[in-house]
Amino acid sequence: MRLRRKPGAPAKIAEYSQYIANTPEEWVGKWHERFKNSNPIHIEVGTGKGRFITEMAKSNPEINYIGIELQESVIVVALDKLIEEDLPNLQLLHVNGGSLTQYFAKEEVDQVYLNFSDPWPKSRHEKRRLTSSSFIKNYEEVLIPEGEVHFKTDNQGLFEYSLSSFSTYGMRLDKVWLNLHESDFEGNIMTEYEEKFSNRGQRIYRVIARFPKRK
Amino acid sequence: MRLRRKPGAPAKIAEYSQYIANTPEEWVGKWHERFKNSNPIHIEVGTGKGRFITEMAKSNPEINYIGIELQESVIVVALDKLIEEDLPNLQLLHVNGGSLTQYFAKEEVDQVYLNFSDPWPKSRHEKRRLTSSSFIKNYEEVLIPEGEVHFKTDNQGLFEYSLSSFSTYGMRLDKVWLNLHESDFEGNIMTEYEEKFSNRGQRIYRVIARFPKRK
Repeated sequence: MRLRRKPGAPAKIAEYSQYIANTPEEWVGKWHERFKNSNPIHIEVGTGKGRFITEMAKSNPEINYIGIELQESVIVVALDKLIEEDLPNLQLLHVNGGSLTQYFAKEEVDQVYLNFSDPWPKSRHEKRRLTSSSFIKNYEEVLIPEGEVHFKTDNQGLFEYSLSSFSTYGMRLDKVWLNLHESDFEGNIMTEYEEKFSNRGQRIYRVIARFPKRK
Repeated sequence: MRLRRKPGAPAKIAEYSQYIANTPEEWVGKWHERFKNSNPIHIEVGTGKGRFITEMAKSNPEINYIGIELQESVIVVALDKLIEEDLPNLQLLHVNGGSLTQYFAKEEVDQVYLNFSDPWPKSRHEKRRLTSSSFIKNYEEVLIPEGEVHFKTDNQGLFEYSLSSFSTYGMRLDKVWLNLHESDFEGNIMTEYEEKFSNRGQRIYRVIARFPKRK
């Protein structure tokens, strides 16, 4: 998602460091301290404008959420939502989702969400997909044993690729939805994208992939 | 698929024992002898009226095919096709697909096809699905190491279940097609069912699932 630059964004991000850590690498292994509790931590990689993670945080106060987004002009929209809602169980992280191990200790994260990630359809861009093996390896490193990745997308090619990529890595596909909005899945929180594309009649795909037991 | 009983079926099956072994358990470990060559053996479990396996055998003379079907009134239709075509690389097997290990030795089979298997949608019938774990275990026992199961269906629920079932068993999903007829897959041979349902606008799903290396 590409938005125009927002001139005030860096200043706002600096100003609200209680919601979006200015020096995130200092919080490695200390996220429970930052949340001031020992509740589970769920992260969303590529949180965009933040509707999903904000709604999740409002609906599940017993879970800590961290929305990760590299693009400044987008995360600042998520920040606006957080300032308005003032949720104690939601943090934003303005870093590259490919560098998770710089910001989280081993087993510090309980669950990963990926929503409507960029499909990068060209083969030569495979490594940029958030469900390619090097990203999966990063998720495994920060997740608890048998941790889950919850992924949804409207992109058929990316979903086909991701099912194969997860299983080839050795993950189990606990559950697959080939038409989420026509299924009995309850409590789905739609992202901005999801609403737009499902209104156009696009199917939404979803999968819960789980890492195997550690050896 | 349920067809009416065909009175002449048992006699015809007995008459054409060169195509459909009368005492199949005697051929365990001897299928290459029966085909009189050492070509790979591909089996279809639930071969129905046999269009798929017959067309495959005609298109790929260097592969031996065995179509397995329990229902007499259906396999006799496949037998009619085979009598007409007289293909040396196609055999039929009138047995229960759940008893593969009674008719094949370990590693005697190179590939398994499952096409438009009965979805058995009720949870209590899960064990009857040809992609449930006890069937998968049978495929593993008769297949070569890293052998493949090629599965296609129009049934969304069965496909969701099967992706999860294969990966939970420890298989890798080498490739997934969420809309086979709109994909770049070449050389697809349609079953009788497939033609009927895709003409009604149904999506066809396909997956190649591969067993891991033996330990």
